[in-house]
Amino acid sequence: MITKREAKLIKSLQLKKFRSQEGVFVVEGEKNVFELLNSSLEIIKVFGSENFINKHAALLESENTTVESSKGSEISTISFLKTNNNALALAKIPINTPMEFDNDYVLAFENLQDPGNLGTIIRTADWYGFKNIICSQDSVDCFNPKVIAATMGSFARIKVHYVDLKAFIQNQNLPVYGALLSGKNIHQTSFKEKGILLFGNESKGISDSLKTCISEEILIPAFGQAESLNVSMATVVFCDNLRRVQNSQ
Amino acid sequence: MITKREAKLIKSLQLKKFRSQEGVFVVEGEKNVFELLNSSLEIIKVFGSENFINKHAALLESENTTVESSKGSEISTISFLKTNNNALALAKIPINTPMEFDNDYVLAFENLQDPGNLGTIIRTADWYGFKNIICSQDSVDCFNPKVIAATMGSFARIKVHYVDLKAFIQNQNLPVYGALLSGKNIHQTSFKEKGILLFGNESKGISDSLKTCISEEILIPAFGQAESLNVSMATVVFCDNLRRVQNSQ
Repeated sequence: MITKREAKLIKSLQLKKFRSQEGVFVVEGEKNVFELLNSSLEIIKVFGSENFINKHAALLESENTTVESSKGSEISTISFLKTNNNALALAKIPINTPMEFDNDYVLAFENLQDPGNLGTIIRTADWYGFKNIICSQDSVDCFNPKVIAATMGSFARIKVHYVDLKAFIQNQNLPVYGALLSGKNIHQTSFKEKGILLFGNESKGISDSLKTCISEEILIPAFGQAESLNVSMATVVFCDNLRRVQNSQ
Repeated sequence: MITKREAKLIKSLQLKKFRSQEGVFVVEGEKNVFELLNSSLEIIKVFGSENFINKHAALLESENTTVESSKGSEISTISFLKTNNNALALAKIPINTPMEFDNDYVLAFENLQDPGNLGTIIRTADWYGFKNIICSQDSVDCFNPKVIAATMGSFARIKVHYVDLKAFIQNQNLPVYGALLSGKNIHQTSFKEKGILLFGNESKGISDSLKTCISEEILIPAFGQAESLNVSMATVVFCDNLRRVQNSQ
């Protein structure tokens, strides 16, 4: 049974204001809750259907998780997803997460706005073996339920850091690769050992202020007439080309 | 002034049933309506803000388009988009569109469900110079307003054909490249002159029935722990690798 108080809390966590206030975020759907259970994130409570609880009984027990057996219809009612009658969890937003780049490239995003894009980017980063993502402070919050949903569990492995992006980039003293229409063909780019891949806002691209930080202007070559690629598409193309080049060296 | 009858019609066109019945679909937002005006698609009516009409006056006149000057607030009310107070158009769904592959590769999708994915795929296809997309008949409708919105104007250039996918593939007698976890690394794939790139459903992937049609099993190599890539991400990786290899030959 999900109490009225819990339902109210969960509903409020759609908004960043209440997530910050409570230090809590919502994880929804079987895949995402399963990945949460397998992560080092601190879980407050899991609301699971009988089916979910039976399927993951061993994991729930070994993690010593507080579980509430709930009806599918109850979970549907509180879930933000269109179809989720399986599982929903409350977890603590981690604080002071250290940045560890392991000598790898850094993915950096300026003023990313669409939660679906950030979620997909987190999933892509996880596929291509990145551990951290850097976002400007005006970007969409990574604990937004729509972001979490789109990560398909990768939120549990990828750390998103919100920083003053320009200051961050200037402090790193690394080559900065930015997607610009005037750039060099990415298919012919030999990436340096370390660097930053920089992406801009969905409609405005990279701001003039940050463009000055770009040391390597890169073009994803177009063969048709679309004016641009979606930022999450550009991200996957950069990641794929980078890993291909790194692996052939 | 948008009449009650028009508002009712527009609202009904969210559903495929009414789009098929009326043979009409909705195009929303400045970029999409602009691309519609530049296309050969038959336009029924454009509802534009004063700003939109002034900006595109010459184009609207040269196309002899029926335009209704509308208040931004009126457009907002009828639009399915969160923020659109600029332009909305009604256009005729084209019939009997011929398939013309120009000896190029074919992008084929089985049981694609998410309108955002199909929209992004149409935009990606347009970026990489494809003209046609093939979908199984149980895939999401390409005239769904969410698909149109996500194409960022590319709906006006890319033709989507709904076919019996297995019969279509078997009739083509072309190599079929399918993304499978057991496949050959795409970074080391030398694509043949012509072929079909085949993608499956968002959660189930390619069905067993269609897997039997795959002649070239391809793997997008993973460097991290995500279980899969989103289908639109996989599409852009295939397109990018294909064009890179074709251009270096």
